[in-house]
Amino acid sequence: MTDPNCRFCAIVAGDEEAAYVVFEDEHSLAFLDHRPLFPGHSLLVPREHHETLADLPRELLEPFFAAAQLLSRAVPQAMDKPGSFVAMNNVVSQSVPHLHCHVVPRRRKDGLRGFFWPRRKYDSEEHMAEVAETLRATIAELQEAG
Amino acid sequence: MTDPNCRFCAIVAGDEEAAYVVFEDEHSLAFLDHRPLFPGHSLLVPREHHETLADLPRELLEPFFAAAQLLSRAVPQAMDKPGSFVAMNNVVSQSVPHLHCHVVPRRRKDGLRGFFWPRRKYDSEEHMAEVAETLRATIAELQEAG
Repeated sequence: MTDPNCRFCAIVAGDEEAAYVVFEDEHSLAFLDHRPLFPGHSLLVPREHHETLADLPRELLEPFFAAAQLLSRAVPQAMDKPGSFVAMNNVVSQSVPHLHCHVVPRRRKDGLRGFFWPRRKYDSEEHMAEVAETLRATIAELQEAG
Repeated sequence: MTDPNCRFCAIVAGDEEAAYVVFEDEHSLAFLDHRPLFPGHSLLVPREHHETLADLPRELLEPFFAAAQLLSRAVPQAMDKPGSFVAMNNVVSQSVPHLHCHVVPRRRKDGLRGFFWPRRKYDSEEHMAEVAETLRATIAELQEAG
């Protein structure tokens, strides 16, 4: 469950001296991002090498997200900010293929207001209904596959 | 556990006819965002009204993130995209104060490459060490408070 070429596995193994570990428990570890959006920006990773959220074993969901929840309280509090941004990039924009959850302290007017833009509208109600139908069918298929 | 003024509670209650629900189970519900980053962009919410990730009761972590995981598989598959972006804004940039997890289909060069920028560096190693120490102390404090 360790990838010898993975930078995050190296941090988990304690081989990365430059890592600032801020949290660890049996299943997960968190450390400061070296190129933060804002100081305090932390990355939470499972100790085991799993590439994306989709790959995380079911039994790790609760411990991993309990740690993410703890960080979503601690990071803003430590940095004296009112909010947090908690996010995972899977495959696309994922710099290291070892699941990592970003926890970023946020305040209003911190320059990230454009984060969720540009947004668009669906071309039509029909298009939106069609997308919803495709998505429901895919979810049903995945649930049946178990 | 319902807020009569909350738009997402209204969707959970089935009072919002314009909502395209794509997933529901005992604890959570997901529907299409009306102003998506890309078609298929879904919002997952707990049925109960909890404002932020920090507020989600421990027993809902596993079911909520199991649903998020399912969506992180289904949304890219349904939209024929290789990746996904899974994110929560807590307090800041949170348009509706009812926890919602964005699940967005992603492909390379889809225009969101700038998502995690501008990033910066810490002023110095000392600054980084200091931030890490503050964060560790806050986490220990929160853990002791239970």
